[in-house]
Amino acid sequence: MAYFEQVSKINFEGKQSDNPFAFKFYNPQEIVAGKTMEEHLRFSMAYWHTLVAGGSDPFGVETAERPWSKFTGLDLAKARVEAAFELLDKLNLPYFAFHDVDIAPEGASLKEFYSNLDTIVDLIEEHMKATGKKLLWNTANMFSHPRYLHGAASTCNADVYAHAAAQIKKGLEVGKRLGADNYVFWGGREGYETLLNTDLKLEQDNLGRMFHMAVDYAREIGFDAQFLIEPKPKEPTKHQYDFDAATTIAFLQKYDLDQHFKLNLEANHATLAGHTFDHEVRVARINGMLGSLDANQGDLLLGWDTDEFPVDLYDATLTMYEVLQNEGLGRGGINFDAKVRRASFEPEDLFLAHIAGMDTYAKGLKVAAKLIEDRVFENFIEKRYSSFKEGIGADIVSGKATLASLAEYALANETPRKNVSGRQEYLKATLNQYILAD
Amino acid sequence: MAYFEQVSKINFEGKQSDNPFAFKFYNPQEIVAGKTMEEHLRFSMAYWHTLVAGGSDPFGVETAERPWSKFTGLDLAKARVEAAFELLDKLNLPYFAFHDVDIAPEGASLKEFYSNLDTIVDLIEEHMKATGKKLLWNTANMFSHPRYLHGAASTCNADVYAHAAAQIKKGLEVGKRLGADNYVFWGGREGYETLLNTDLKLEQDNLGRMFHMAVDYAREIGFDAQFLIEPKPKEPTKHQYDFDAATTIAFLQKYDLDQHFKLNLEANHATLAGHTFDHEVRVARINGMLGSLDANQGDLLLGWDTDEFPVDLYDATLTMYEVLQNEGLGRGGINFDAKVRRASFEPEDLFLAHIAGMDTYAKGLKVAAKLIEDRVFENFIEKRYSSFKEGIGADIVSGKATLASLAEYALANETPRKNVSGRQEYLKATLNQYILAD
Amino acid sequence: MAYFEQVSKINFEGKQSDNPFAFKFYNPQEIVAGKTMEEHLRFSMAYWHTLVAGGSDPFGVETAERPWSKFTGLDLAKARVEAAFELLDKLNLPYFAFHDVDIAPEGASLKEFYSNLDTIVDLIEEHMKATGKKLLWNTANMFSHPRYLHGAASTCNADVYAHAAAQIKKGLEVGKRLGADNYVFWGGREGYETLLNTDLKLEQDNLGRMFHMAVDYAREIGFDAQFLIEPKPKEPTKHQYDFDAATTIAFLQKYDLDQHFKLNLEANHATLAGHTFDHEVRVARINGMLGSLDANQGDLLLGWDTDEFPVDLYDATLTMYEVLQNEGLGRGGINFDAKVRRASFEPEDLFLAHIAGMDTYAKGLKVAAKLIEDRVFENFIEKRYSSFKEGIGADIVSGKATLASLAEYALANETPRKNVSGRQEYLKATLNQYILAD
Amino acid sequence: MAYFEQVSKINFEGKQSDNPFAFKFYNPQEIVAGKTMEEHLRFSMAYWHTLVAGGSDPFGVETAERPWSKFTGLDLAKARVEAAFELLDKLNLPYFAFHDVDIAPEGASLKEFYSNLDTIVDLIEEHMKATGKKLLWNTANMFSHPRYLHGAASTCNADVYAHAAAQIKKGLEVGKRLGADNYVFWGGREGYETLLNTDLKLEQDNLGRMFHMAVDYAREIGFDAQFLIEPKPKEPTKHQYDFDAATTIAFLQKYDLDQHFKLNLEANHATLAGHTFDHEVRVARINGMLGSLDANQGDLLLGWDTDEFPVDLYDATLTMYEVLQNEGLGRGGINFDAKVRRASFEPEDLFLAHIAGMDTYAKGLKVAAKLIEDRVFENFIEKRYSSFKEGIGADIVSGKATLASLAEYALANETPRKNVSGRQEYLKATLNQYILAD
Repeated sequence: MAYFEQVSKINFEGKQSDNPFAFKFYNPQEIVAGKTMEEHLRFSMAYWHTLVAGGSDPFGVETAERPWSKFTGLDLAKARVEAAFELLDKLNLPYFAFHDVDIAPEGASLKEFYSNLDTIVDLIEEHMKATGKKLLWNTANMFSHPRYLHGAASTCNADVYAHAAAQIKKGLEVGKRLGADNYVFWGGREGYETLLNTDLKLEQDNLGRMFHMAVDYAREIGFDAQFLIEPKPKEPTKHQYDFDAATTIAFLQKYDLDQHFKLNLEANHATLAGHTFDHEVRVARINGMLGSLDANQGDLLLGWDTDEFPVDLYDATLTMYEVLQNEGLGRGGINFDAKVRRASFEPEDLFLAHIAGMDTYAKGLKVAAKLIEDRVFENFIEKRYSSFKEGIGADIVSGKATLASLAEYALANETPRKNVSGRQEYLKATLNQYILAD
Repeated sequence: MAYFEQVSKINFEGKQSDNPFAFKFYNPQEIVAGKTMEEHLRFSMAYWHTLVAGGSDPFGVETAERPWSKFTGLDLAKARVEAAFELLDKLNLPYFAFHDVDIAPEGASLKEFYSNLDTIVDLIEEHMKATGKKLLWNTANMFSHPRYLHGAASTCNADVYAHAAAQIKKGLEVGKRLGADNYVFWGGREGYETLLNTDLKLEQDNLGRMFHMAVDYAREIGFDAQFLIEPKPKEPTKHQYDFDAATTIAFLQKYDLDQHFKLNLEANHATLAGHTFDHEVRVARINGMLGSLDANQGDLLLGWDTDEFPVDLYDATLTMYEVLQNEGLGRGGINFDAKVRRASFEPEDLFLAHIAGMDTYAKGLKVAAKLIEDRVFENFIEKRYSSFKEGIGADIVSGKATLASLAEYALANETPRKNVSGRQEYLKATLNQYILAD
Repeated sequence: MAYFEQVSKINFEGKQSDNPFAFKFYNPQEIVAGKTMEEHLRFSMAYWHTLVAGGSDPFGVETAERPWSKFTGLDLAKARVEAAFELLDKLNLPYFAFHDVDIAPEGASLKEFYSNLDTIVDLIEEHMKATGKKLLWNTANMFSHPRYLHGAASTCNADVYAHAAAQIKKGLEVGKRLGADNYVFWGGREGYETLLNTDLKLEQDNLGRMFHMAVDYAREIGFDAQFLIEPKPKEPTKHQYDFDAATTIAFLQKYDLDQHFKLNLEANHATLAGHTFDHEVRVARINGMLGSLDANQGDLLLGWDTDEFPVDLYDATLTMYEVLQNEGLGRGGINFDAKVRRASFEPEDLFLAHIAGMDTYAKGLKVAAKLIEDRVFENFIEKRYSSFKEGIGADIVSGKATLASLAEYALANETPRKNVSGRQEYLKATLNQYILAD
Repeated sequence: MAYFEQVSKINFEGKQSDNPFAFKFYNPQEIVAGKTMEEHLRFSMAYWHTLVAGGSDPFGVETAERPWSKFTGLDLAKARVEAAFELLDKLNLPYFAFHDVDIAPEGASLKEFYSNLDTIVDLIEEHMKATGKKLLWNTANMFSHPRYLHGAASTCNADVYAHAAAQIKKGLEVGKRLGADNYVFWGGREGYETLLNTDLKLEQDNLGRMFHMAVDYAREIGFDAQFLIEPKPKEPTKHQYDFDAATTIAFLQKYDLDQHFKLNLEANHATLAGHTFDHEVRVARINGMLGSLDANQGDLLLGWDTDEFPVDLYDATLTMYEVLQNEGLGRGGINFDAKVRRASFEPEDLFLAHIAGMDTYAKGLKVAAKLIEDRVFENFIEKRYSSFKEGIGADIVSGKATLASLAEYALANETPRKNVSGRQEYLKATLNQYILAD
């Protein structure tokens, strides 16, 4: 059965058509920088926003019209699977991602949850085989249920910790079965509300222990997915432990986990932490920790996670620039962790929003590829740092220099070589020209 | 000669007096939690704000009336030393801290700067001997001079890097000579303005190299001060590399520097990074990185470093709570990295502001000591996490648990032990009662 | 029947008791500045947070344990009334406030909603008569239902506008019947999501029209409550039309409504707009627009409406200072528009949180009264502006001066009278001393 | 003499050239929407940023290389005039704007300042006659000098108020003489640092009085420029009285000044107030208060006024969209209140930055014109609000409806007409397509 009869499969013939249900920039088979767009972008649909969420917010109930909302329980779960694969097909999305509770009802017990998961995973597996769609990553939702009100792996209640472990165990098994490329940890309640009642060290130690157990179990069952942690600074808790890329790297280093994890970076989480998205991606990249991307965007004048579909050409360009410099995302992808606005409540909006996001990233990819091809920034940077290629600069980089040798040099060269303008305005205007070119 | 004839030495007899130039809460010899207040607090005066700065801001010139401002050059530098020691004496401040350029004019060359520094350091040393005042820390200002417009240890200009090294070398020698307890690095221009022109990896690698050279040179000359890095997220650059405590720890771990450095945490820098001050102090504490404090406060509705004198009783209490839990600051201290408002331009304001800050921290110390004595939060926390003391919780903490054993436990215990309220409102009301008690 | 058997009526004998269910500072009959505390503070319970809300947030479901949650429909509504009056009684709260949908289920039609409201209003009226509790204000919730997804009085759908009008009409009738002191308008969806689809002028014009209709209808039915608008800058919409006090005053002036409305100011809304709460209260006060207060507090490091119970002594003191300067709140009051944290989910937390808030404001009132009695700030300010009392200053204030006369004066007085320090640090330290004085 | 020999006059032949000193989009004589680009955009150079400022910030001294910096006093002032007109010429900028202190040294007395101003105004007038360049607006700097540390028109010192009046008087005379199109008031110190020492009402009353005096004097001398107030929320003071457009409109209405003033809106000031720039422009537009624009941009992750040259295509497009809907800026213009970054310190950067800004606005103009020509948003909006064109909607808009008539309608129409999606994602994607269309 079809849930979106009003929308045909969106092909790429009519790219420049006026039909709003058409791509203007994305063309999966188009070659950019030596690979197809599809290979570069590895787009993924977020099950929770697109199949599950309904547009509620702290001040209002759900508004979304979803053809499957007439069902309940396992029937609802099954209907969502159908709808999901119809969407993946019509939108030419190769990947999807989910939390355990997105796909199956929790039921009255952990046992029932396991059983519900098995039922739905069977169904998903069938569809995957039939369609060739793939699972970018799965994860366990350990933040929505009341049991997690004090956290999951950082809870003060050991029984809750055990329950979280049981969810992760099942999640790893599900990931293995469905051939997930990655397994993600976002610590929705791993943080604190007030330090007055918090044993910060114990909570972080326990979090580290849980990650080690997950690594061990994945190895045990032969699940070779890339493990990812997704940083976020705040919301729902006042302070989340995985504040940003650097904080998460510090944690992974401290707990000897940095060889086992990379980062799943989200644009809106970056801005909530006070960073641009490309900053976070750069930090991950130069630390060898760039795993996957949650593509969305926030509103920098608002202080919460708005999870908007990404339509900012600057962000898309600079993000894809980093991705290309990283030689791709490897097993990661670009997951639309984005939700239609509460007032965009019609089923068609799901299509329009994904098209908007995919087109934005497609254009960003093309601009980034051209920038790199022309070595616009690379040439500038190479020249800018050229003093570290020879003489005293080379001594510094090679580790030969000491404070004493450098001081001696400085005393002998009272007129150091002149600084040169950083040309920020010019570089930004150049970026505009590349975005606007052809 | 006296620069502040209008203010007598402030003693502690008239503590409850109506005289605004009197302490209400600070009494250096009063015993709190087994030590004198003076030993706990190790207050320090910031030379730059108090002796050098004049109240300019981006929209206006200096306003401060400073009796020594009639001098110039080395005479000015000497007058400031006199004034500094008069202030330290009258305010009963045991410590002070400075950047190299605060105490001596840079002159026309590095050579001249070294010479000027020597002259003034002689003078300071004399005064230290005569008065018993001590140097909490010194540092090199590598951000004000135009040569550092692209950074110092993270510059793109190798000659500038060498100059920075020469400043640090001299700074370490000055610190050794004056017996500084600590040596501080605040990377005022160590960051970037735009990623478009920045080789982030090279800049951070070079920064790491400079720190290693500094460690080596200090060892070489036998300067055993504690080395401190001071995090700040932004300002003056768009993004500073030492964003916050966690970011700095990540950096130190990566570059194998974490055994050589601790953190100098500043309240206003914490809030600019999106953290409470006590959060930053806690993070440092549980990582064994709590070095020293720059006591001030920001205005959370403003987005720049206002560096106000600390007068918030909550912040002072929660900060001193962490300090007491850390068993003190060791060789660190509480340095008033704070400036009188531009409109508080009279010399008297320097006294009133320091008294305000010292009194606030003194009260904070007393409240924190009482909270700990009564185990107000400790008892609550101990009970809250008690499930990790035995049974499955103990297995988790000891590392005995696995995902499989925990899942088995969870399946066998479908009704986990009940969560208990976090009692945030009650705990905050209790904090109020302790602040307001006696 | 009692829903809170575990908590006895909280009396004021045991004020200094260690019992957490006791007030430490609030004593309704204590005289402060010539009136009882109860008369000054006019505390009110917010029905929505305390009786209705359950601790859900965008990342998790409800957690609150509420003894009445076993009921549904009208039975639930009735149980909440019982619980509400038990709380009002046990907490000595004289007032309460509600939205229409808080007290009665909407049912399947407007007609049914009216009928449900009538049923519950009967019950509330009975309890009010029996207990002497009073309605501080009521309002209509025109933001939660899907029909309001594009706004209510600023909707693009005329039928929705009519529905909103029908809710307001009923609200005014209910308010009259229950003798409400005030009627409040908070425009939860009166704002926009994007200007790209918004006719800003029509929306604001229609909003003005709705307010005029409400004024007319209240007059028609003889409902003489004070009308209040509650500013908020953002959330749930990207931009709310009643951004802050000044914006709302501009709107009321423009639409000739300023004689009919005052402001209901909320602390957390102030901070979301970039203001301190006392700023908003001062702006309203000097414009003769101070109506009532929604007492809560936000977390200035978080960007959403956290609606915490107010426990900050500075805010409470400075707010009560403005209230005293205004000679009270008139028909307004102090409504705890505050919710217990999601992790403070036990029924007891409702009591502990209200006690925390009431105590904080009681202490704030006492400190403010003492500050005014001693004319601490008044004397300082009087002296500070004294140059406007005579000579050229008096000419300015009286309107006698012109640019020409002032320029002539300035040319003739090239050495103007000296500025004097604003003494901010001293004044803040003095505020601390008053807060800490018993 | 020429100060910028390295840069030739930038013509528009080589528009698509690779020469960085060339425009890519701006062509003054190109017709867009019925007028030349030059007529639409009325670009202006800000004297203070371009001729006077040197790149200092709170953490560092000036860095800018300016060929005229070898001069001092009146010679420097004269050299700047030469350089200014050379820049205006080479950049094809038709307008400029200045504060009094930008063009002439204040000297030792008001009298001397008047005299210096006369000297330089003579010189500027000559150049204006010779070149046809025009003064968009002038203003008086009443925030940099120490005398204004407590404000100018809102000072607590009547003599300072008189001095401010004398500056304004001269400013109006200078504006008249040079044929300024506008006269601007930006209240750099008109605000407060702390309410503890502030008589808010007196300060605002005095501010209102000053504006009335200015209106009167302009009329008296026959200076018919448009009067503008420039809102800004904070910085340098903690709270500035002209917080944003709405606040300023409230002030103007209250003091009966709204017939005499319009607004000069600045992009970075908008974002500091929590608004988009187009929001502020829209608010001004629908209130008939859109006067002129200070074109720049802020960094939304930084909390201070960065005053960057505008390079964001979204902002430029949406701003020009409002300007076109306003049928132009009238006597206002687009003034680059923007400064090159501290690290863009070479003279060439002044050219590159202006070209970047002018090109961005030129492209924004073209995109906006096309959007309006195609009625992209207009058609959508017209349909969206069509229910207010007839029936009950028309009754609402005409003022015929009452709460009673609307409630009756709502009761009779229990199934209101359906809401329709707001299509935000689609509209934003459409905006992207228009930006990217050639």
